[in-house]
Amino acid sequence: MRNIKLEIEYDGTNYCGWQIQNSSELGARSSERKSIQEVIEGVLYKILQEKIRLISSGRTDAGVHALGQVANFKTDSGMPLDKLQSALNGLLPADIKVKRAEDADLSFHSRFQAKSKVYRYTILNAAYPAVFLKDTTCFYSYPLNVSLMRKEARCLLGRNDFKAFCASASTTTQDTVRDVKYVSIRRLSLESEGPSLIVIDIEADGFLYNMVRNIAGTLIEIGRGRFPAGSLKMILKSKDRKRAGPTAVACGLCLMEVKY
Amino acid sequence: MRNIKLEIEYDGTNYCGWQIQNSSELGARSSERKSIQEVIEGVLYKILQEKIRLISSGRTDAGVHALGQVANFKTDSGMPLDKLQSALNGLLPADIKVKRAEDADLSFHSRFQAKSKVYRYTILNAAYPAVFLKDTTCFYSYPLNVSLMRKEARCLLGRNDFKAFCASASTTTQDTVRDVKYVSIRRLSLESEGPSLIVIDIEADGFLYNMVRNIAGTLIEIGRGRFPAGSLKMILKSKDRKRAGPTAVACGLCLMEVKY
Repeated sequence: MRNIKLEIEYDGTNYCGWQIQNSSELGARSSERKSIQEVIEGVLYKILQEKIRLISSGRTDAGVHALGQVANFKTDSGMPLDKLQSALNGLLPADIKVKRAEDADLSFHSRFQAKSKVYRYTILNAAYPAVFLKDTTCFYSYPLNVSLMRKEARCLLGRNDFKAFCASASTTTQDTVRDVKYVSIRRLSLESEGPSLIVIDIEADGFLYNMVRNIAGTLIEIGRGRFPAGSLKMILKSKDRKRAGPTAVACGLCLMEVKY
Repeated sequence: MRNIKLEIEYDGTNYCGWQIQNSSELGARSSERKSIQEVIEGVLYKILQEKIRLISSGRTDAGVHALGQVANFKTDSGMPLDKLQSALNGLLPADIKVKRAEDADLSFHSRFQAKSKVYRYTILNAAYPAVFLKDTTCFYSYPLNVSLMRKEARCLLGRNDFKAFCASASTTTQDTVRDVKYVSIRRLSLESEGPSLIVIDIEADGFLYNMVRNIAGTLIEIGRGRFPAGSLKMILKSKDRKRAGPTAVACGLCLMEVKY
């Protein structure tokens, strides 16, 4: 028996998410769109001729991307790892690829053993949307004060109750305390005037449902000047989802890395 | 009467090209996919309530992109340019956007007055295809010798007969002499090992049908070591399309700029 760990990247645009999320999504959308998990499991079945159950580090929503999702599965196959990776990438569609395949300890579990995850939220701050960034950024045309966003975001660091940034529908989550280890907000631009990307990186020991998108949506309101100074701290302390900004669009979000 | 000049960017993935190309393409494909020109003309009709005929700097093929296509049209509308641009970008799909709109001299003609065009061909040289570059690069997994490609490409500079790099089907083209003003081949990579982009930039006073893709396909054969040193010059002089390499895929090609 082997336990194979895969590092996976995907463009989530055409999928219902890593996995079919919950009953409320079992409508028209999920019947049209496949999940990333089922596509990979289908290809693994073709290659290994056995039914594989992939365990990932966690779900990602419809439209959310990954450059470093991790998943593992058990198999009795003796196929060499390079051959397995080539076979996977040959059969997988162009929007899902395996970056790395390696043998892990039999006890390795992608979800339970994840120490932290890094998510990136990317905003295109420009006069008009860029055609090549339409599926991977959140377009925002009004000026955003990035240094203010950065200053406000400091309060996110450390162990905090992030209930205010947890999807209100997610009533099953009991423990809403998470440890945010790193927050970075940068503006990347080629010219001083003109279009730029605002890149928000957040690392935490875990994330609540829609947490990064709710933080990003709130930071956009702050950068726009709609919320006064100190708002983010106030919202965090309130534990009240209704005080935070709107959920920023899914396509701006990307799971960058899972650390073990 | 005004003559309005538009600078346009588009992701050509889902289109049959700038314009429906010729009778051989009037089959199943063009009935499914729209041309970029008809989409923009349709939106201009909605905004200006008059039938507009767009004149572009030239056609681009199915799957080919543009970051700096130029087109002009005549109208009696007095609409301010910023309002026109906003209205266009509001109604255009996410994969076509207008970067700039300006009033041009009434005699301005996007095609006849173009002094030169700059095309970029991008190769992803990596072990596996990147999910976010699937529609904008030509994936090539084998090592490519970029300095050799660069050395060979020097012979393209200046006025030459590019018949060897002209699509063999294009028998209507009489004059196959073009003036190549600039050629640059660079490798961009984040790490010394690992994936990189090979970017081929070519500026010329005009391009034959499939010329850049045929040059790129030949340069790939050279970089791979399949053609001996001096091949490109020999192929160019032969004026024989059959001696050149294959036509590289459309999605790697992008019209960067039209100079007037």
